[in-house]
Amino acid sequence: MQNLKQYIADNRQRFLDELFELIRIPSVSSQSKHKDDMRQAAEQWKKILLAAGADRAEVMETAGHPLTYGEKIIDPSLPTVLVYGHMDVMPVDPLNLWHTDPFEPVIKDDKIYARGADDNKGQAFMHAKAFEYLVKHNLLKCNVKFLMEGEEEIGSPSLPAFCEANKDLLKADVILVSDTGMIAPDIPSITTGLRGLAYWEVEITGPNRDLHSGLFGGAVANPINVLAKLIAQMTDENGQITIPGFYSDVIEVSAEERAMMAKAPFNETDYKKAIDVAELSGEKGYSTNERTGIRPSFDVCGIWGGYTGEGAKTVLPSKAYAKISTRLVPNQDHEKIAILFKEHFERIAPNSVKVKVTTLHGGQGYVCPIDIPAYQAAERAYEKVYGKVPVPVRSGGSIPIISAFEEILGLKSILMGFGLESDAIHSPNENYPLQQFFNGIETITWFYNYYTE
Amino acid sequence: MQNLKQYIADNRQRFLDELFELIRIPSVSSQSKHKDDMRQAAEQWKKILLAAGADRAEVMETAGHPLTYGEKIIDPSLPTVLVYGHMDVMPVDPLNLWHTDPFEPVIKDDKIYARGADDNKGQAFMHAKAFEYLVKHNLLKCNVKFLMEGEEEIGSPSLPAFCEANKDLLKADVILVSDTGMIAPDIPSITTGLRGLAYWEVEITGPNRDLHSGLFGGAVANPINVLAKLIAQMTDENGQITIPGFYSDVIEVSAEERAMMAKAPFNETDYKKAIDVAELSGEKGYSTNERTGIRPSFDVCGIWGGYTGEGAKTVLPSKAYAKISTRLVPNQDHEKIAILFKEHFERIAPNSVKVKVTTLHGGQGYVCPIDIPAYQAAERAYEKVYGKVPVPVRSGGSIPIISAFEEILGLKSILMGFGLESDAIHSPNENYPLQQFFNGIETITWFYNYYTE
Repeated sequence: MQNLKQYIADNRQRFLDELFELIRIPSVSSQSKHKDDMRQAAEQWKKILLAAGADRAEVMETAGHPLTYGEKIIDPSLPTVLVYGHMDVMPVDPLNLWHTDPFEPVIKDDKIYARGADDNKGQAFMHAKAFEYLVKHNLLKCNVKFLMEGEEEIGSPSLPAFCEANKDLLKADVILVSDTGMIAPDIPSITTGLRGLAYWEVEITGPNRDLHSGLFGGAVANPINVLAKLIAQMTDENGQITIPGFYSDVIEVSAEERAMMAKAPFNETDYKKAIDVAELSGEKGYSTNERTGIRPSFDVCGIWGGYTGEGAKTVLPSKAYAKISTRLVPNQDHEKIAILFKEHFERIAPNSVKVKVTTLHGGQGYVCPIDIPAYQAAERAYEKVYGKVPVPVRSGGSIPIISAFEEILGLKSILMGFGLESDAIHSPNENYPLQQFFNGIETITWFYNYYTE
Repeated sequence: MQNLKQYIADNRQRFLDELFELIRIPSVSSQSKHKDDMRQAAEQWKKILLAAGADRAEVMETAGHPLTYGEKIIDPSLPTVLVYGHMDVMPVDPLNLWHTDPFEPVIKDDKIYARGADDNKGQAFMHAKAFEYLVKHNLLKCNVKFLMEGEEEIGSPSLPAFCEANKDLLKADVILVSDTGMIAPDIPSITTGLRGLAYWEVEITGPNRDLHSGLFGGAVANPINVLAKLIAQMTDENGQITIPGFYSDVIEVSAEERAMMAKAPFNETDYKKAIDVAELSGEKGYSTNERTGIRPSFDVCGIWGGYTGEGAKTVLPSKAYAKISTRLVPNQDHEKIAILFKEHFERIAPNSVKVKVTTLHGGQGYVCPIDIPAYQAAERAYEKVYGKVPVPVRSGGSIPIISAFEEILGLKSILMGFGLESDAIHSPNENYPLQQFFNGIETITWFYNYYTE
């Protein structure tokens, strides 16, 4: 492994060129106009894997967007690492807030700016390059399988069935994933917990057409007024979610563990400054890291209804809509929560409106033990590259498929993430620092070294 | 006046052709892209008035869109009627709900379908044709002035100053307006009260960019969640508005007057069926007609924020917006209410967000006495054409300029409206029944007859 750093340095421009080729494919999984782009991204991953040294790679069908599977089997009796990543990205709206084209990557201030630069094209691509190095230098001492899916950003609806149907193909000892972050460039961390997710769209219908707000206002329920009241009722003055039974399966984290969590570096002033808010807000009795790490949350992700154009239109609208999500903690079941919300929301709505609740997607939370060999190999790899033992942290994000992997394939996932909070994933001007990209390749390569010692 | 009906019948197609020419001008006053259309509408009205028999008509400038003034002065010592109407229309969104082009009028089931068919091109145009009949047959026994403005749908921001500056030009004895409705085709009514209006846009800013709802959700205030809470707090469980001081100037209507109002025909089953709602909703202790006629109301006319596209995007948005209106009753001052709302809304907002409240427009309420000669002439005119004495009613709508006319010009307005509830004004598929259009021309002509007897 002596020439690893040199190899990365020598191939720097080629690695970026190859990544940019992938990024340029606008693979937005949630928008039907990008259906063909999803297939193109899968084909591109096939090329990437074969070029990196896979014995076999193919685009495989699912009920939804296709995925790419690849492998290099050295010896079936050796351990097998299954690398998981996703080729799909979030929508780019609001487009006008991007400083450059989201699908034409540019390097500025030593960062790659593009949709998917971090999440997850940039991070998944590091695995292909670590694998390439190991294969080229005959240093690979285990089998490697790659599973690159195209529906992560819409909750991986087809992948569980694919896993059920392909258990033999996906047989492995551990799953390796880079789709999370670390605390800071100088504070490496490994995510050991993920929140689950339940996500709905609600539609409130008042009168059958938009009415004149003067002639009808005050006598006919306004669906926006009603929607606001319903949303407002979903959380109480302590920032707790009011859906009956919502917290039933939440396991309270012990005072001891909370004390450990409190040691993780956190600067409230910097945190507030970075997002420009005067005050933080959340569930009473919990710190910011606890609020995102070990407690559920309730967020309206979008809302619309009535007149939203220029000027004033005095209308009592017919419809109002919202996209509503909750983040769940391990042991909460997203399917149970989906039903609890729907029933509660419909029950508390007044008879003066009609309510339709559609569950859009969901996923379970996840916890990774820190005493398994794969976790410890990851720990050593970070220490080798970053000079510090990584901190185990609970992330507020969700990767619904991670808990599905555990359930279906019986495998734990090691979440070796290299994203930073400033990467603006899911937002305009998503970016990924070059240093994290190249350090990531190096760290992943070391993971294989320690894991197969 | 014996040949009045015949004259209308003989000129039926020409009247419609002329009206349609006016309707085809997309004079949406609130949208800057229609600025030139506003001027074209004003030029069109100049043509209409000169063709109908005005001695003089001209397009006059205001601080905003131009207006059209026209007159026929027979003898300065005779009484003068000032006809007021507006050439501007509401926006047409949501366009996809229109069955035909909003600016290409069609006749279907004996109704004219188009934006402005009723409000206010159709109704205002009736006055031009009544005037034409009287001039052509030498039956006009008073002076007539026309004032057609282009900013009614945005709250007539420039007209008060125009009136202040042109008091002599607009000198009259009474104002005649057709911009309201009647109860039903067989139940004529005259509007004797109008609600006032105050209208705001609010902007809630949370973090400086859209955030990942997993990584930040629960720890950072979500501007949509906050906006919903703020809107929800604006009304209480009794349907009353909670802004401190909001009801201070509301005059309670006497039990006697309420008993009179209760005699107006109202069929709750039909009313609910027409707009397809299972239950009506409003301030406790008041009937539907009272809720829209003598009580203020609070309506969110539009709301937007976050992700509103296809599928699920897990985002904690940076911004949320709403367009909020209140209808006011006579004696409430819209300027005072505008300040009360703004102060209250800003005060109750949490420090975790920034709030911006912009007042978009407003207008005072209005009451017309039923014992003045002009009202009585109108009453006789309706009785002549519809066969029944019209019912005096309080409308829930607002025509902000009507109270301004009273204040600046010292004139009462007679609200001779011919619209029907089914006309869908401000909504997709606005329409105006041909019968109301032609009966309106006839009724207005009889008004002049009785007023100058």
